[in-house]
Amino acid sequence: MSLAAARVRVVDDTSTARRTAHAYVDLLERRDWSGLAALLTDDVVYEMPQTRERIRGRDTFLRFNTDYPGDWHLRPRRVVADGRFAALLLDVRVGDEQQDACVWLEMSEHGLVNKIIDYWPDPYDPPSGREHLVERW
Amino acid sequence: MSLAAARVRVVDDTSTARRTAHAYVDLLERRDWSGLAALLTDDVVYEMPQTRERIRGRDTFLRFNTDYPGDWHLRPRRVVADGRFAALLLDVRVGDEQQDACVWLEMSEHGLVNKIIDYWPDPYDPPSGREHLVERW
Repeated sequence: MSLAAARVRVVDDTSTARRTAHAYVDLLERRDWSGLAALLTDDVVYEMPQTRERIRGRDTFLRFNTDYPGDWHLRPRRVVADGRFAALLLDVRVGDEQQDACVWLEMSEHGLVNKIIDYWPDPYDPPSGREHLVERW
Repeated sequence: MSLAAARVRVVDDTSTARRTAHAYVDLLERRDWSGLAALLTDDVVYEMPQTRERIRGRDTFLRFNTDYPGDWHLRPRRVVADGRFAALLLDVRVGDEQQDACVWLEMSEHGLVNKIIDYWPDPYDPPSGREHLVERW
């Protein structure tokens, strides 16, 4: 494959990854489970490093989501796609509560999601000693 | 600008963003403050949404980093670049402690970093009720 052809291939992978990343959030938000299933490989792996939890396989991942408690809503704040990788910064709301989530997707060679890594960063109080450098919002 | 020219422009922005994202981590890790300064716009904004802290300006941001306590070390686990945006998944170590960080970069039109959003997700215990779906590591 020529360098030019390789570059086109990367750009095409990127377009697919970007489209898939947007669809991933949209289908979750709409609870479109069959649509979501069609986006995932059979053996997709879902990881939450903060709890060291791992889920293997599409069926188990779908069950995890259908069982997930609360009327949660997702909105993408940023979608960054690069070859077979994508990163999503999500605005997540459950009732009046808001949290950001960082989601890392990895695509198969056929453009399906085959790995998901989720981070759920909680708010915390800033350490003292840097008040002179920062403003709060 | 033609569609083809626009695509080349995006690919070039992406290459710049990817290179800058790698350099950002590398220069921080090496405490190369003048190298890092050259990578940032004068009015770069740094945000930590978990503490709702914001730092404005290159000098203040550099001070924040030179003052930061601990012998911290950064290693990029994933770099995703897309146009003027990049996302970094970092492996952060201080002594025996390890934490992942999610970093979102935004570049100026000249390819300098003009916004940084950092998330520091802490470990937590998984909620009960989903043990049948997950494995732990």
